[in-house]
Amino acid sequence: MPNAQEVQQLRKATGAGMMDAKRALEESNGDFERAQELLREQGLADARKRSDRTQTQGAVGSYLHSQADRPVLGVLVELASETDFVAKSAEFQRAANDIAMHIAAARPSWVKRDEVPDDAIEKERQLIEAQARNEGKPDDVIPKIVEGRIGSFYEDYVLYDQTFVNSEKFDGTVGEMVDQLSAQMGEHISVNRFVRVGVGEGVTE
Amino acid sequence: MPNAQEVQQLRKATGAGMMDAKRALEESNGDFERAQELLREQGLADARKRSDRTQTQGAVGSYLHSQADRPVLGVLVELASETDFVAKSAEFQRAANDIAMHIAAARPSWVKRDEVPDDAIEKERQLIEAQARNEGKPDDVIPKIVEGRIGSFYEDYVLYDQTFVNSEKFDGTVGEMVDQLSAQMGEHISVNRFVRVGVGEGVTE
Repeated sequence: MPNAQEVQQLRKATGAGMMDAKRALEESNGDFERAQELLREQGLADARKRSDRTQTQGAVGSYLHSQADRPVLGVLVELASETDFVAKSAEFQRAANDIAMHIAAARPSWVKRDEVPDDAIEKERQLIEAQARNEGKPDDVIPKIVEGRIGSFYEDYVLYDQTFVNSEKFDGTVGEMVDQLSAQMGEHISVNRFVRVGVGEGVTE
Repeated sequence: MPNAQEVQQLRKATGAGMMDAKRALEESNGDFERAQELLREQGLADARKRSDRTQTQGAVGSYLHSQADRPVLGVLVELASETDFVAKSAEFQRAANDIAMHIAAARPSWVKRDEVPDDAIEKERQLIEAQARNEGKPDDVIPKIVEGRIGSFYEDYVLYDQTFVNSEKFDGTVGEMVDQLSAQMGEHISVNRFVRVGVGEGVTE
């Protein structure tokens, strides 16, 4: 049985409830690090379970990039949450602005994979297949090559699959960053949409 | 013949060139107010003539509206100019931000009339016609009523036709405000596009 002090310490470190902290320490046989990890995984799982809950709250993150004395690029992003309590927090708003900054630099085309239109994926598959043939790859390995390289297509154009541009702030993809925030805040958080307006560029949504 | 001092004064007041100022004073028979008006008209005409010149410069105007301690609405607008000299000016950037603020408040759907899709106008016409019939208007005046009321439709949903929300700053439509800036700066200026992101709202472009 974990003692009260350990439980208290774990709750302080993770923000977990009494029973959750106790159970995590039992499961980890008193290993504090492992208990933290278990709670983090649990938090993620819970946040995913909540992903069908209504998100009517959130905040608009923004980023302006200036060049030659005037803003030439602007990004707005809607980061959605379940409660205004979470949306009001400094951490949530910081994340929203960080994601806007990321979008300015990394120029994604879509938020999630399921938003990529079928014909865009089909076109990309054909392109990869043609390239692989040009490289002289044998027919039987081509499907595998296509699957592999389609992953890089997502990493290039899908926000959640992109590696966050500032690895000092967060080391991982934007999707992982949003998941972590979700787990930490204890409610479903997601990027609903973004827009990008650049001088002479056109709008990307 | 206008004297050099008058010409100088007019140039100072309007930013016009020497020859333009002289000609305006000649045309107005030395009436200073009228000369100013002539130059303003000329400026507008010139700016319109230039409207087919390439606009590759500009600035992004922005506005964020906060509520309950977090930004819940953001607007970005691309104000285009011909040169970066104009785009860099404080006046141009102030106008871009003013227009973004206006868009947040007035919720236009399109920048200019020619962007309104034909079917949106057709639907509106049918609605007005049905209303007029309900009001018992005789058949022969209905086309006139439709034309009149379609004007209010534009004033409600087309940015350039909307009355600028802050009449203390500018008394007129947003289109007139942009025209005035154009005349003043001596080059073609226009709103290229805008986007609006509100929490729980969806995107309007």
